[in-house]
Amino acid sequence: MKGLKLAGLNGNQKTIVNVDGVKIGTGFVVIAGPCSVESEEQTLETAHAVKKAGADMLRGGAFKPRSSPYAFQGLGLKGLKILAKAKDETGLPIVTEVVDPRDVSWVCEYTDIMQIGTRNMQNYSLLKEVGKSNKPVLLKRGMYSTIEEWLNCAEYILNEGNSDVILCERGIRTHEKYTRNTLDLSAVPAIKELTHLPIITDPSHGTGRLSLIPPMSLASVACGADGMIVEVHRNPKEALSDADQTLTPQQFETMMKDIRKLQKFVGSEINGK
Amino acid sequence: MKGLKLAGLNGNQKTIVNVDGVKIGTGFVVIAGPCSVESEEQTLETAHAVKKAGADMLRGGAFKPRSSPYAFQGLGLKGLKILAKAKDETGLPIVTEVVDPRDVSWVCEYTDIMQIGTRNMQNYSLLKEVGKSNKPVLLKRGMYSTIEEWLNCAEYILNEGNSDVILCERGIRTHEKYTRNTLDLSAVPAIKELTHLPIITDPSHGTGRLSLIPPMSLASVACGADGMIVEVHRNPKEALSDADQTLTPQQFETMMKDIRKLQKFVGSEINGK
Amino acid sequence: MKGLKLAGLNGNQKTIVNVDGVKIGTGFVVIAGPCSVESEEQTLETAHAVKKAGADMLRGGAFKPRSSPYAFQGLGLKGLKILAKAKDETGLPIVTEVVDPRDVSWVCEYTDIMQIGTRNMQNYSLLKEVGKSNKPVLLKRGMYSTIEEWLNCAEYILNEGNSDVILCERGIRTHEKYTRNTLDLSAVPAIKELTHLPIITDPSHGTGRLSLIPPMSLASVACGADGMIVEVHRNPKEALSDADQTLTPQQFETMMKDIRKLQKFVGSEINGK
Amino acid sequence: MKGLKLAGLNGNQKTIVNVDGVKIGTGFVVIAGPCSVESEEQTLETAHAVKKAGADMLRGGAFKPRSSPYAFQGLGLKGLKILAKAKDETGLPIVTEVVDPRDVSWVCEYTDIMQIGTRNMQNYSLLKEVGKSNKPVLLKRGMYSTIEEWLNCAEYILNEGNSDVILCERGIRTHEKYTRNTLDLSAVPAIKELTHLPIITDPSHGTGRLSLIPPMSLASVACGADGMIVEVHRNPKEALSDADQTLTPQQFETMMKDIRKLQKFVGSEINGK
Repeated sequence: MKGLKLAGLNGNQKTIVNVDGVKIGTGFVVIAGPCSVESEEQTLETAHAVKKAGADMLRGGAFKPRSSPYAFQGLGLKGLKILAKAKDETGLPIVTEVVDPRDVSWVCEYTDIMQIGTRNMQNYSLLKEVGKSNKPVLLKRGMYSTIEEWLNCAEYILNEGNSDVILCERGIRTHEKYTRNTLDLSAVPAIKELTHLPIITDPSHGTGRLSLIPPMSLASVACGADGMIVEVHRNPKEALSDADQTLTPQQFETMMKDIRKLQKFVGSEINGK
Repeated sequence: MKGLKLAGLNGNQKTIVNVDGVKIGTGFVVIAGPCSVESEEQTLETAHAVKKAGADMLRGGAFKPRSSPYAFQGLGLKGLKILAKAKDETGLPIVTEVVDPRDVSWVCEYTDIMQIGTRNMQNYSLLKEVGKSNKPVLLKRGMYSTIEEWLNCAEYILNEGNSDVILCERGIRTHEKYTRNTLDLSAVPAIKELTHLPIITDPSHGTGRLSLIPPMSLASVACGADGMIVEVHRNPKEALSDADQTLTPQQFETMMKDIRKLQKFVGSEINGK
Repeated sequence: MKGLKLAGLNGNQKTIVNVDGVKIGTGFVVIAGPCSVESEEQTLETAHAVKKAGADMLRGGAFKPRSSPYAFQGLGLKGLKILAKAKDETGLPIVTEVVDPRDVSWVCEYTDIMQIGTRNMQNYSLLKEVGKSNKPVLLKRGMYSTIEEWLNCAEYILNEGNSDVILCERGIRTHEKYTRNTLDLSAVPAIKELTHLPIITDPSHGTGRLSLIPPMSLASVACGADGMIVEVHRNPKEALSDADQTLTPQQFETMMKDIRKLQKFVGSEINGK
Repeated sequence: MKGLKLAGLNGNQKTIVNVDGVKIGTGFVVIAGPCSVESEEQTLETAHAVKKAGADMLRGGAFKPRSSPYAFQGLGLKGLKILAKAKDETGLPIVTEVVDPRDVSWVCEYTDIMQIGTRNMQNYSLLKEVGKSNKPVLLKRGMYSTIEEWLNCAEYILNEGNSDVILCERGIRTHEKYTRNTLDLSAVPAIKELTHLPIITDPSHGTGRLSLIPPMSLASVACGADGMIVEVHRNPKEALSDADQTLTPQQFETMMKDIRKLQKFVGSEINGK
């Protein structure tokens, strides 16, 4: 790995990102919620459900980077206000995506963590702008990117003075067609040995299939991930995006029980944790 | 292909983008110049050399999206002014990359075509912004993108009212290591049968190897491309970026002779052109 | 998935392959040993070491399909005889690769499971020949293959009458360079929902990096794999092949303790196992 | 490139493979015919048609490596006899695939060139067997293979004493879905600079789309290929395999006119040919 001054190990202590008391970089943090914020009712209902099931944070997209300009693009400011209300009611910190450098300063006001999506991983203007902000950044891996390129993007953010970067393995594009992407779990221990940054996984986008989310979540715990981000919707069939990879609150709750049991076991019983 | 309202064939006439009399979409337009604008002297000397060898336009980067934040990032406004001077002296229209939606309005003043690079193909904020401008846009294919995704990005630009979009096949990322990317020449006739937009190739980034640029340029002519963009530097060994895939003016001149001969032959003798 | 008459679920019971009392398809079976059989001393010493650490079977290659014709090609019959001796001494059943349809009948005499390697996944003559034999077959996934293609290759074997097929996810070829391949763990639950066949993983070839083998082994247990195959050598630095991804007996023993603890926990405490 | 003793340039003269007077390695040799030999009538009719249109050799599969065991597997010996009859009638030398090392000695009797298909590129037993034969070998690139791996497979053949190896670029597997594979034309000049062996292209498998075959054929001529292999069937809609990428005799004839014109022009007018 060339040129990693800030993200590399370099004798640094592991970074722990503290968001309203939720510590990313120790334990296993679960971020759950709908792909898109579609309405206040849908968001609040889902937020309460994931809170009840044990989620640590709420995710929800207000700006949606969609392949087609004719697909639902998100509610924008209105969506951010709904997320803020959901936080008020549940206490869950908010993770939402930012897609334009001009939006960073004001999106910051409504969110606890800013997400950089896979399509914007190498949007250097955006990286520099979030690097100048005072909010933690969740940097998703480009679907085509190598680990080295990804870490260089983290470097762009760190280099501007923002040290709270969380990496997210969300699947890479391969020849396999059964899954939407190929979740590269080996990136988790690889990132651990190359950097001091926390890393979480995204089994929703990483697989694109409902049935594969629970086993990949358990595998994420077992290989040492610091958490995961997962799509939950009160009624996935009505979701405006990503319906095929979105859990119901009930499915999420069942999965969470296994995750918490495994997390506890791995944390106490497995060598080297 | 879903949702292509504007870029699809739809009985449309082929789009011809007219830039100061250089018509892209008929014939074979050659855009040449350095990867980066490094200095006035380097740029002007290279501009005169490519003009002499028969190039139709001058390329040069003032904003360089580089993998590492510590690599040369370009001269910015100073670079644009040098390009403007090169145009004044040679008459060659200018192609330069824009990377930030906040820059579009003023970069427009200095360039004839705005390039969207491979890393920003799905930077929708940037696409919308160039879509609102009155300058033609050269949209490079994402190194990971399918033809369908690429055309949807063209759709983002067209949908804002800018109809002058030129596509550029610049190589996709594959498992092959001998070349930097794999130049997907079949995308040229594929684009021709799916859209009314012109398409050019980039054999410099597409191969990453000096020796492969001339044969891939000839193949581009033969398969029906509307032109190409190629890196030329007065002294490639001194280039601050892409030295391994940059032609000397002499190599460019030799290649251009073959290209023009083949272009003329294909234009007049090959069925269906 | 088209045309899966025999490997598909079709209401079948899960297949359990019973090899001298080791049951693949229930629990977590660990197959360990050197990449290549290099000498009797090396093989026996390694065999005793993996037995002591808790391995269930011994692997070792007598026929090595190597990229270059000038690389070590294996000991052939001499290697098989060494493996037979190792089985005599340790009681561990043997897994070894077969690469030529002409060898199947006599290799059968020396091994308990015949392995089809990644390069031969679509060598249909070989598949048909092992399909006619009476030994279980370990079918590795082609490094380029989709799950559907892989299952069709299992179908070739089943269709000849041999119902004891074990699938092995050994990593697919992607753009990532940090790892040798990308271990596609989502293939484990995918295979479980598509077929009745057991599936194991190969974290040695799947990652190509020593440090990533233990976390990927634990992840394999957590996502429901039926076992794994891993390279162990008494002295990896002296190994004639795959030295970078081969564990020492001591490293293997440490890893096995965690695997067995996790296996036990997952088997008893995790929902749906 | 490591270890290329025999296929590398090494000061060797370019290899020219002479088959009944058809010289591969100079000019542009066109091998045409059906994917599969289905019947005598179909094969003879197609053979006469491609002969009339100017093909240099006849292709046809008697052993078909198919993804599913339930797909048409070829006529075997009966198919070879039909090919022999087609040669008798038309004078066209025959190219046919061999898939099993046990078949090499007798398939040799019926064919002029033995083809190794993409799935068998690393079937080393088969490579060694054709390396011991006295017939030229057409070695297709593995759909997943690097140029280096491919050349090492040529080395396996050369190392057994057979110096008549022709390489065939037939497309690699990538993320693109519009085409069946991505035809890597840059492999043509790459092979030319790395080896003394002739290289042809396969635009039928390389694109999988009828409409893309003619432009990719012309591009093959322009970038310096020594020929191509293409699927032609008297009635593609009735073909038992590869119907979507098979030309009618009429389409082939039209394409051949352009190919021969371009070949002549490139041979005489383009620098360095």
